[in-house]
Amino acid sequence: MSLKKGIIGVDLGATNINSLLMSEDGEVLARDFRPSLGYQGKEKVLSQIFSSIKTLQKEGKKSGVSSFLGIGVGSPGPLSVSKGIIYHSPNIPGWENVPLVDILQKEFNLAVFLENDANAAALGEWWRGAGKGINYLFLLTLGTGIGGGIIIDGNVYHGAWDVGAELGHMVIKEGGMSCGCGARGCLEAYASATGVVKRTISAIKHNHKTIITRLIQNDLNNLTCELVFKAAKQGDELALWIVEETGRYLGIGVGSLINILNPQIVILAGGMIKAGDILLKQVKKYAMLNSLKASREKVEIVPAKLGENSGAIGAVATVLKRKGII
Amino acid sequence: MSLKKGIIGVDLGATNINSLLMSEDGEVLARDFRPSLGYQGKEKVLSQIFSSIKTLQKEGKKSGVSSFLGIGVGSPGPLSVSKGIIYHSPNIPGWENVPLVDILQKEFNLAVFLENDANAAALGEWWRGAGKGINYLFLLTLGTGIGGGIIIDGNVYHGAWDVGAELGHMVIKEGGMSCGCGARGCLEAYASATGVVKRTISAIKHNHKTIITRLIQNDLNNLTCELVFKAAKQGDELALWIVEETGRYLGIGVGSLINILNPQIVILAGGMIKAGDILLKQVKKYAMLNSLKASREKVEIVPAKLGENSGAIGAVATVLKRKGII
Repeated sequence: MSLKKGIIGVDLGATNINSLLMSEDGEVLARDFRPSLGYQGKEKVLSQIFSSIKTLQKEGKKSGVSSFLGIGVGSPGPLSVSKGIIYHSPNIPGWENVPLVDILQKEFNLAVFLENDANAAALGEWWRGAGKGINYLFLLTLGTGIGGGIIIDGNVYHGAWDVGAELGHMVIKEGGMSCGCGARGCLEAYASATGVVKRTISAIKHNHKTIITRLIQNDLNNLTCELVFKAAKQGDELALWIVEETGRYLGIGVGSLINILNPQIVILAGGMIKAGDILLKQVKKYAMLNSLKASREKVEIVPAKLGENSGAIGAVATVLKRKGII
Repeated sequence: MSLKKGIIGVDLGATNINSLLMSEDGEVLARDFRPSLGYQGKEKVLSQIFSSIKTLQKEGKKSGVSSFLGIGVGSPGPLSVSKGIIYHSPNIPGWENVPLVDILQKEFNLAVFLENDANAAALGEWWRGAGKGINYLFLLTLGTGIGGGIIIDGNVYHGAWDVGAELGHMVIKEGGMSCGCGARGCLEAYASATGVVKRTISAIKHNHKTIITRLIQNDLNNLTCELVFKAAKQGDELALWIVEETGRYLGIGVGSLINILNPQIVILAGGMIKAGDILLKQVKKYAMLNSLKASREKVEIVPAKLGENSGAIGAVATVLKRKGII
């Protein structure tokens, strides 16, 4: 009879819940992936989380897990790590001040820890991914929005009230494009997938020639960031311009953050990194042009290694960190 | 016979050396202020530092100091805190890779600690000034350039290679004004005293009406940031515009840093804060417009309390910190 211990990590997203059961030494024992069904409201989402965790517990028992060390949850903010409360979720009706840690503790009688999703991704990459063994790093999640996570001396940086590391809301262009946060010129406004789509639409409306119009069958509602990257890979001039510009904006943000944080590595995560070298090259170029010699000469800028699992792996790592195991 | 212990703090500037002798509980026992004479080269500056420290030792003995706990030095970077080396100083010919900690240790046979000047100012304000008792803060020194210091959990944040917290070199306007660092659009390029002068000159050259032309006797070489602030206080429209614009740029930078660092307070230090409310009001306004609700609602933005002594007091605090006394 084995005495294997398991840890459950839940990456709670607006669209999907990605959960992993892992061993203390980082082996993935089971995975559960299901829709979060946020549009059906708070209770539905909670029941999806419950089911996901229960599924992993069952799977774990099958593969010899004798006990569970705890549950970690990575969630979009704003939230309080110390209080275990998620304050608000724009995508889940009724999701206000949800004491998720208490709820899960009662349901499963296990230690539960909450972490901001991008912080969790940074910790996941630090534990098992591109940041293994590296004490100072920051990570950007490039998706619908831009999230950030900062690791200082091997620990997640939370700030005074757990709401730090909002790296997407650094202004890179004073008086620039409007951002969802209410400010103007944020990195997120320009360089998120949403920003890419907005800038592309604006260019198409100004009659730039591009194969994108064919790809979207002349309907701008069909435009996605992925399509722009696809067109760029096919050599489309407008798309190439947009992607390079996106890399420049990102590089400017990354360069500023290198000056502020002096990290050893910078990790780029999220759906947009599928663009590959075409984007990464520009990010590197402009990060170097916008950072000081002393900070930039030894820093590395790399894509995340854990793909869509970085958040769930980070949720597992959150449990291990808070228990002082790693 | 008293057994009072003294600590010497040296604030090494490009123009002046400001040194303090303090007691462990923060009482200023003596002060020495003299020119650094950087233009006369490295050896001259070292001899000025030696004289300054020796003067304070003599003064200390007179006022009952029986022993010295150590010497702290705050200096412009780039430098290595851990190695005790100042790599370079643009204002002192021959000042390259100076092992200042070793040099002072040999001369005085005391423990010597080196810190970046803006970091020292932040630590000084944390110990005895506007940041007393506050664990998370950052400070901007607004002068010829813009320096930064970050306090996390009551300690100076250094980053991976001691070169973090270069808060003046955050890009706030992509593609904007050239900065001394080689990048474009840095906060320092716009909102330092140098930036204020540049923007004012540009406006005067475009024939904006202003009393400044009279104040500088029609010679743009006479223009200083102080004069612009003086004209603004007299109600000059151009000067007011420039000062308000400066506050906006600073506020945008401060707002971004609030999102990144989630501090409890933000401290503005350096010569430019003499502008007073006219500047501070704008900084606050734009910092609030450019930061997220969760971070901004409890944050305070305040002027430094220690004036021109924050660096020297921070150099003393550096000794006490590294010795584990505070």
